[in-house]
Amino acid sequence: MLTELARKNRSYRRYDERVRITPRQLERWIGLTRFCASGRNMQPLKYAATADAIVNEQIFGQLAWAGYLTDWKGPAAGERPAAYIAILLDRSISGQYYCDDGIAAQTILLGAVEEGYGGCILGSVNRSRVSEILELPGHLEILWVIALGKPAETVVIEELAGTDIRYWRDAEGVHHVPKRPTDELIVCMK
Amino acid sequence: MLTELARKNRSYRRYDERVRITPRQLERWIGLTRFCASGRNMQPLKYAATADAIVNEQIFGQLAWAGYLTDWKGPAAGERPAAYIAILLDRSISGQYYCDDGIAAQTILLGAVEEGYGGCILGSVNRSRVSEILELPGHLEILWVIALGKPAETVVIEELAGTDIRYWRDAEGVHHVPKRPTDELIVCMK
Repeated sequence: MLTELARKNRSYRRYDERVRITPRQLERWIGLTRFCASGRNMQPLKYAATADAIVNEQIFGQLAWAGYLTDWKGPAAGERPAAYIAILLDRSISGQYYCDDGIAAQTILLGAVEEGYGGCILGSVNRSRVSEILELPGHLEILWVIALGKPAETVVIEELAGTDIRYWRDAEGVHHVPKRPTDELIVCMK
Repeated sequence: MLTELARKNRSYRRYDERVRITPRQLERWIGLTRFCASGRNMQPLKYAATADAIVNEQIFGQLAWAGYLTDWKGPAAGERPAAYIAILLDRSISGQYYCDDGIAAQTILLGAVEEGYGGCILGSVNRSRVSEILELPGHLEILWVIALGKPAETVVIEELAGTDIRYWRDAEGVHHVPKRPTDELIVCMK
């Protein structure tokens, strides 16, 4: 069951933009992070989210997509995300967040995938502009932005052969992602 | 379903040590990380694991448990982990791992929880000693150690009231973890 969910949870970058996401859904997925482990239980992560078409468009302009697809400018109108969740570090709580960010990002995405949506964690973000758009106070630092929507592309995992980990898109628009085999991941088993 | 799994996935620190974990199980849980997102798809994380009682005992001596429970020295004999997974950064691939570590840790733990086990992510680790015990080459850096076993304690989530995020254990040995309410986590919803 989790295996199926983990498999379905690909980094999707093209969506059916007609399928909206509601603030209620975003709240539900963010709410899952309440149950997540947090280093020293500090819980310094906060969240800013938008399902608003106008705000979404502003955010979209501040993101860079799929570094390896050099001749692709990112999703076109009609295939853009229906929502975004920015993962924030609340520096008034702590400057340290251990691995809380990845725990939260994965949990949010698995929640979305379970409901038939999907997303992509973006690190190439104009953080100062997104902070302005979302009117975030200075103590909230944007770590990552998760784009969310109804996936409208096929993403397939391939066995990595060699060392070229770059994903690529074929003539039919299928997105291929080379992943290391499990026996390469495990360097020691006692 | 995921909500139930996320709720069950507490940081457990006492286990029924009679219940063993097999290398096959560890491989399965680590194998889930193949399906995880990775920044720039670099996949720089590797894993070292042990389900061996003697190695486990050596690792156990290199860990510090539950910082807030100052009068508790960690799990006693009989309630110690049945296995460990060390999450490693392979510096020969990359020095940068974005939020891959938390994504992997959460995915491994959810896999274990789904099969009736549980664990705890430990950051207070004598990394150089654990590296020696696991005979890790120098390019593999220990990020976190996940302890795993059959949980033998009750962990309850409580609504955080005020600012004291320290977990505590009551007279019956129940472990209480104050968590921020969802509306405190969401600072902006558009």
